[in-house]
Amino acid sequence: MAAQEEFFAGIPKIPYSPSAGPADVLCFKHYNAEEVLMGRKMEDWLRFSVCYWHSFCGTGADPFGAPTLHRPWNEGTPMESAKKRLRAAFEFFTKLGVKYYTFHDRDMAPEGSTLEESNRNLDEMTDLALQLQSQTGVRVLWVTCNLFAHPRYMNGAATNPDCHVLAYAGAQLKKGLDTAQKLGAQNFVFWGGREGFLTIHNTDVAAELKHMANFFKMAVKYREKIGLKCQFLIEPKPKEPCKHQYDYDAVSVIGFLKHYGLENDFKLNIEPNHTTLAGHSYEHDVVMASAFGMLGSVDSNTGSPDLGWDTDQFPMDIRNATLLMKTIIEQGGLQPGGLNFDAKVHRESTDLEDLFIAHIGAMDTFARGLRNAVRIIEDGIIPGMVKDRYSSFSHGIGQKVEEGSASLEEMEDFIKQNGEPKVTSGKQEKYESIFNHYI
Amino acid sequence: MAAQEEFFAGIPKIPYSPSAGPADVLCFKHYNAEEVLMGRKMEDWLRFSVCYWHSFCGTGADPFGAPTLHRPWNEGTPMESAKKRLRAAFEFFTKLGVKYYTFHDRDMAPEGSTLEESNRNLDEMTDLALQLQSQTGVRVLWVTCNLFAHPRYMNGAATNPDCHVLAYAGAQLKKGLDTAQKLGAQNFVFWGGREGFLTIHNTDVAAELKHMANFFKMAVKYREKIGLKCQFLIEPKPKEPCKHQYDYDAVSVIGFLKHYGLENDFKLNIEPNHTTLAGHSYEHDVVMASAFGMLGSVDSNTGSPDLGWDTDQFPMDIRNATLLMKTIIEQGGLQPGGLNFDAKVHRESTDLEDLFIAHIGAMDTFARGLRNAVRIIEDGIIPGMVKDRYSSFSHGIGQKVEEGSASLEEMEDFIKQNGEPKVTSGKQEKYESIFNHYI
Amino acid sequence: MAAQEEFFAGIPKIPYSPSAGPADVLCFKHYNAEEVLMGRKMEDWLRFSVCYWHSFCGTGADPFGAPTLHRPWNEGTPMESAKKRLRAAFEFFTKLGVKYYTFHDRDMAPEGSTLEESNRNLDEMTDLALQLQSQTGVRVLWVTCNLFAHPRYMNGAATNPDCHVLAYAGAQLKKGLDTAQKLGAQNFVFWGGREGFLTIHNTDVAAELKHMANFFKMAVKYREKIGLKCQFLIEPKPKEPCKHQYDYDAVSVIGFLKHYGLENDFKLNIEPNHTTLAGHSYEHDVVMASAFGMLGSVDSNTGSPDLGWDTDQFPMDIRNATLLMKTIIEQGGLQPGGLNFDAKVHRESTDLEDLFIAHIGAMDTFARGLRNAVRIIEDGIIPGMVKDRYSSFSHGIGQKVEEGSASLEEMEDFIKQNGEPKVTSGKQEKYESIFNHYI
Amino acid sequence: MAAQEEFFAGIPKIPYSPSAGPADVLCFKHYNAEEVLMGRKMEDWLRFSVCYWHSFCGTGADPFGAPTLHRPWNEGTPMESAKKRLRAAFEFFTKLGVKYYTFHDRDMAPEGSTLEESNRNLDEMTDLALQLQSQTGVRVLWVTCNLFAHPRYMNGAATNPDCHVLAYAGAQLKKGLDTAQKLGAQNFVFWGGREGFLTIHNTDVAAELKHMANFFKMAVKYREKIGLKCQFLIEPKPKEPCKHQYDYDAVSVIGFLKHYGLENDFKLNIEPNHTTLAGHSYEHDVVMASAFGMLGSVDSNTGSPDLGWDTDQFPMDIRNATLLMKTIIEQGGLQPGGLNFDAKVHRESTDLEDLFIAHIGAMDTFARGLRNAVRIIEDGIIPGMVKDRYSSFSHGIGQKVEEGSASLEEMEDFIKQNGEPKVTSGKQEKYESIFNHYI
Repeated sequence: MAAQEEFFAGIPKIPYSPSAGPADVLCFKHYNAEEVLMGRKMEDWLRFSVCYWHSFCGTGADPFGAPTLHRPWNEGTPMESAKKRLRAAFEFFTKLGVKYYTFHDRDMAPEGSTLEESNRNLDEMTDLALQLQSQTGVRVLWVTCNLFAHPRYMNGAATNPDCHVLAYAGAQLKKGLDTAQKLGAQNFVFWGGREGFLTIHNTDVAAELKHMANFFKMAVKYREKIGLKCQFLIEPKPKEPCKHQYDYDAVSVIGFLKHYGLENDFKLNIEPNHTTLAGHSYEHDVVMASAFGMLGSVDSNTGSPDLGWDTDQFPMDIRNATLLMKTIIEQGGLQPGGLNFDAKVHRESTDLEDLFIAHIGAMDTFARGLRNAVRIIEDGIIPGMVKDRYSSFSHGIGQKVEEGSASLEEMEDFIKQNGEPKVTSGKQEKYESIFNHYI
Repeated sequence: MAAQEEFFAGIPKIPYSPSAGPADVLCFKHYNAEEVLMGRKMEDWLRFSVCYWHSFCGTGADPFGAPTLHRPWNEGTPMESAKKRLRAAFEFFTKLGVKYYTFHDRDMAPEGSTLEESNRNLDEMTDLALQLQSQTGVRVLWVTCNLFAHPRYMNGAATNPDCHVLAYAGAQLKKGLDTAQKLGAQNFVFWGGREGFLTIHNTDVAAELKHMANFFKMAVKYREKIGLKCQFLIEPKPKEPCKHQYDYDAVSVIGFLKHYGLENDFKLNIEPNHTTLAGHSYEHDVVMASAFGMLGSVDSNTGSPDLGWDTDQFPMDIRNATLLMKTIIEQGGLQPGGLNFDAKVHRESTDLEDLFIAHIGAMDTFARGLRNAVRIIEDGIIPGMVKDRYSSFSHGIGQKVEEGSASLEEMEDFIKQNGEPKVTSGKQEKYESIFNHYI
Repeated sequence: MAAQEEFFAGIPKIPYSPSAGPADVLCFKHYNAEEVLMGRKMEDWLRFSVCYWHSFCGTGADPFGAPTLHRPWNEGTPMESAKKRLRAAFEFFTKLGVKYYTFHDRDMAPEGSTLEESNRNLDEMTDLALQLQSQTGVRVLWVTCNLFAHPRYMNGAATNPDCHVLAYAGAQLKKGLDTAQKLGAQNFVFWGGREGFLTIHNTDVAAELKHMANFFKMAVKYREKIGLKCQFLIEPKPKEPCKHQYDYDAVSVIGFLKHYGLENDFKLNIEPNHTTLAGHSYEHDVVMASAFGMLGSVDSNTGSPDLGWDTDQFPMDIRNATLLMKTIIEQGGLQPGGLNFDAKVHRESTDLEDLFIAHIGAMDTFARGLRNAVRIIEDGIIPGMVKDRYSSFSHGIGQKVEEGSASLEEMEDFIKQNGEPKVTSGKQEKYESIFNHYI
Repeated sequence: MAAQEEFFAGIPKIPYSPSAGPADVLCFKHYNAEEVLMGRKMEDWLRFSVCYWHSFCGTGADPFGAPTLHRPWNEGTPMESAKKRLRAAFEFFTKLGVKYYTFHDRDMAPEGSTLEESNRNLDEMTDLALQLQSQTGVRVLWVTCNLFAHPRYMNGAATNPDCHVLAYAGAQLKKGLDTAQKLGAQNFVFWGGREGFLTIHNTDVAAELKHMANFFKMAVKYREKIGLKCQFLIEPKPKEPCKHQYDYDAVSVIGFLKHYGLENDFKLNIEPNHTTLAGHSYEHDVVMASAFGMLGSVDSNTGSPDLGWDTDQFPMDIRNATLLMKTIIEQGGLQPGGLNFDAKVHRESTDLEDLFIAHIGAMDTFARGLRNAVRIIEDGIIPGMVKDRYSSFSHGIGQKVEEGSASLEEMEDFIKQNGEPKVTSGKQEKYESIFNHYI
């Protein structure tokens, strides 16, 4: 980026300094990109990605307050500002040492007054993005279309009762898929913030679900047509902005996909802040999606369990990061997905350095989670205890159940011969104590 | 029941007295069983059922307190008491004027020290039940197996890590299906209170889900084998007693059924108290299950939205009852399912008459809901507004989307020709005001 | 308002038409301002007030979407637009037939670049307000200072760790109290959206609470100094925008006031949407504040119990309105407080008429609540049952407990003589059934 | 305990083995009772206590299942069993190395058919307790009366609408205070599980609050009369078993105490599982009670943030334990209160050793929390950052605000001279990162 303006002056490439003190917050103490664990580099297990929307377009506004974050790249006309922003972002990616970023179409380029103008803006910006990607080696983890912020989508995009709006969403999606191809995105995400309802009184749920499925089918067809090689991901969220969103949680989305025959064309992008808003524990949807073979990527952020809205905070809890990384290792990693920081600095964190501190803190948290999970798996104590717990299914009647060849009559015979099963402690506190040993 | 003991002395058959005063709580003011609305008797739209467990076996104990409900039928040996209880129940059904009841195997007959003894107890009790059914015309809406209360099921029944326990559950289920056949049950319910986990640390989710699916498949096979004509129902609940239950909510269950190819063999029994515990609005799972064509029956009760556990209260909210009845009418009724009062009097409601007052209050609430829903549908104002709202899907590009034959390229062309859609108010407050008119 | 521009053309003064049909949503079917119930006009029991912020400044923006509400008064310079807005509001108040409105200082007049400029703007606008008040007879129910939206308040106003910010809030408050006096406001509200914390890590709770108390004491002193006759109200909210707000709920605020000796200078303004966010039932904080003699006013709105953020919807639930009005009648009314519609039309309700429909629907809901509550109280059945329930405290040992003159020794003696108390049913279902009779 | 039966055969006194491996769960790896940190032994900072109710009387029953925990001390008549139980408990306390225990009157001795018989049972049991205390040096952290489990209390104890029940509670309390004195209890706890309401319809809130206050005043008077030297503690809980409990959370209780002039006679016993049920973060009520000078003791347990009922799990989260211990150190410790494990093993944790594993895991968690908090405080980095943040209140206008001598006029003058305050980042992510360094 040679003679370009420097936006984060005074902040060098973030080093790995494992012995740094508590107040040193501009270095990694745990994340060592090149270090190999279980046969893979840390950066390949973790595949960190920076989210463009929150970190470069966020203003700090909230429903009760005005913008607080005044960034040096917000200068000039919308397109001038968009270009400064993109250059700032690539400076940030490079200094932070992450290899991926994610963005919405309307983050990168301002919406024009017509679809054609919006598309031209996007073309101009993606030309620059392509050049910066090539200069830095940073790649697109995923791209997505913003089908929720514009007023036209207020009653839904793919589920809008007016087909004209659905058509607009389709047109925008077509361009989004073209953009994914142009920039070599590894994934394409669908998040349906307005795909749901505000009140059941005015809503035909069955019609809306069908329209949404047909919308996805058009996307699948077009992906095939243009030969786009990127994984489609649906991101569940239970509510907010809608009162109820159809993509409520991981298993809801899996049910929807299976009902409409779409399960081979999509995987899931799980955001733990959405998981907790759905009433589950932090790790739940990551674990469930993985159990169904549907975990594609993770928006690694967090909320506070006592808050009922999406706070998109940087994830700083080592226990939670350990649970996630354990699941991810067990399924062989997330590629082509990754860990995307769909997180924003607090609106009170107004210093430019806070953007670095937040990402570094979260990356170190996940690096600790990875190290912990590797030790748990390599030690084999917890995995061994779990394996023993289910060992009755590897032989005899258990094996028949496992294989699906048993019958109720056989069950009855077995009990008539063997009587009451013995009581076996679940040992939850023992598991928790051993788990704590690794943290 | 001739010379039998009378348990509810002084309480006659509950009459319909539409002009009774506020303090008259032992008569129906709205429920008029024989009255015809939209071509069907009220009793056939509503198909009320009394739940044996709560209303005849409940003790009023809670996690912080001892039993408070001392019933006259709890006398003698376990089997003597079981028989008195059953006679009392049929007296209640008859005086209340409901035609259906529901029960768990272990409610009706005490568990013995072996499976064989439990089965003999059940046989003896169902002989009596058959006789009482025949005398009174009261029928079984559904039967279910209690696969959660006995300590052997503490770590799960169909999802227990020990196959010996799963086998026990299978043996019990076989008898349960035989019982359903013997008593002519119209449905058979599966509620998996222990099918989930307490901690993810000791749990192999993928294995457990598969075992549960295979367990259901054995049930389907056995149903076919014995020629049992009753609808299988799964009842979702998100949590409690487990930290997480696999049958979290309606859409989760549908996803599970579709994943394992079980969707043609099961429908759903929705309990609104479980719906609200899953973070949804009261009517949500009834509406969703119906939209997927999977609504089989309703456990009509309620919780308080500010409480986080299952209170199983009698449903007394007219607005909620109206929403439910509107959905039920729109799908053509619930038969062979019904409205089962899976509800218990408060532990402080210690008078025997409270059992009547609670049922009558709830029946009148649903009768009002039915009357309101009929007026909404017959007036056609709200249905007409909804129909208009989606009218763009009946022709042109909308019709192609509806039929699944449209493409993203066509969407783009349409927008290039037609530009920005016009803004259309969602009119939520108008819908709410009109809805209130009917309440 | 003579030759002024008309903003709500085609909408006349809203009439009372008790026999209007379901689709007639621009008339009152229940609210009849002049009708006398229990010796008081409906308008004097209900004291409805329109909230300026939501209804005239709201844009429909949400954290996931851009503004949707484009109002005809948003034209010209900020001050020109402010004046059009105010004229539109008075046209609305008059056509709707409400006698009160509420506003924040920064709603009515745009914030300037200095305190002095802001104050001048406010003076100019309140001159116009005074004139419009005099022309129409509409009065200010309450005024408040917006001490949360400007970035300077992001870390708190009265609880900001930087005293410079607290001073700014104090200066703004001084002008706010002067404004209350100028416009004859009957109440002054404090809502501390930023008075709390985002993280406990950087917060000295004890210091902040003391600063907040001292801030309130300055307000009390200044009120006395200028001879302002208006009731001070604190409005509790548990969280949002803060992670935790010090004014969590009614009883928390009462505790705070008592701890700092402020209980004689403040009452409470209860917003039910905040009550439910605090984990209570809808009516809870109204009932508790009234029980402590501290209920001053009500921000009559609603949320959805399944949503975890402030949706500020128009209240449309008749049952809830009945419970509120019963408490309000029992304490003799709300004056000088009232029922302020701190509610916004949905961002999808983009028609100008939706503003009328929403207010009318809510006013009719509360009118029905009032009529129901009057019948409950005049019938005396429920109040009589409650009185009987506590009758043991009117004589003997109960009277001594009531008066505070009893001792544990006397309790023991009483039990030794009288033994076990008899069991008395709480009759919850009976109360619910009778209550339903009135709805 | 010489020739007594040994209940936990094979389990020796739990040693401190800091280098033990992950699978060694019957030793302390972090808790070293005699080690001195910041001038005090670990055991004196932590003051661990075992809860008799959960650990020795718990059966594993839940609302959906039968008892699972079959203990060797449950043999013989109720009184024989009670004595075995007490001996087993003292064996456990001694082997575990804790110095305190807590109990309800009805845990230790079975309730008789009259008050007199109950009192005799209690006397006989406390004679044995006194002897075992003297043999082992184990002491009573607190005692409490069970005023919620017996059916007579179903509608409340101190808030029962029938004064006869209140009198029974008073008589029981008198004996409870005598028992506290006999056994040298350091604290006496009031937990009002039934002091609240199930429905507002049948409840006179103002009357009930007054009765509760007068009940507490009788306790204070009797404490003085008998010269009992033990701290009175109220334990807040928001709901369950009631729909709403008057002692909702820490600040609610403080408000109640101040309203009735009881604030000098009581402190608070905070249970974090109750705190999270009230919608707060884990540490919230501990921090708030401490800020008001009212933190007396802690029931150190945990729930799951995604569950809405009291699970009373053993606390295993190191981050939470660190936050609690930091607050406790900052207020100079908890004495005469302590950390009482009001926690139960899961009903699936059926092995006798699980009781040890659970306590050890929790004690090690709090030992780690203590060590972390000591490092945070001794390093001084976080405390120093917080002190700097509030430094503006130590001089000039800030000092006047701090002292309560400032006025709004002075605030206005200050702003007219000094203009807009500068923006200061809240640095939340920096605090979180530094905090993580210590974990």
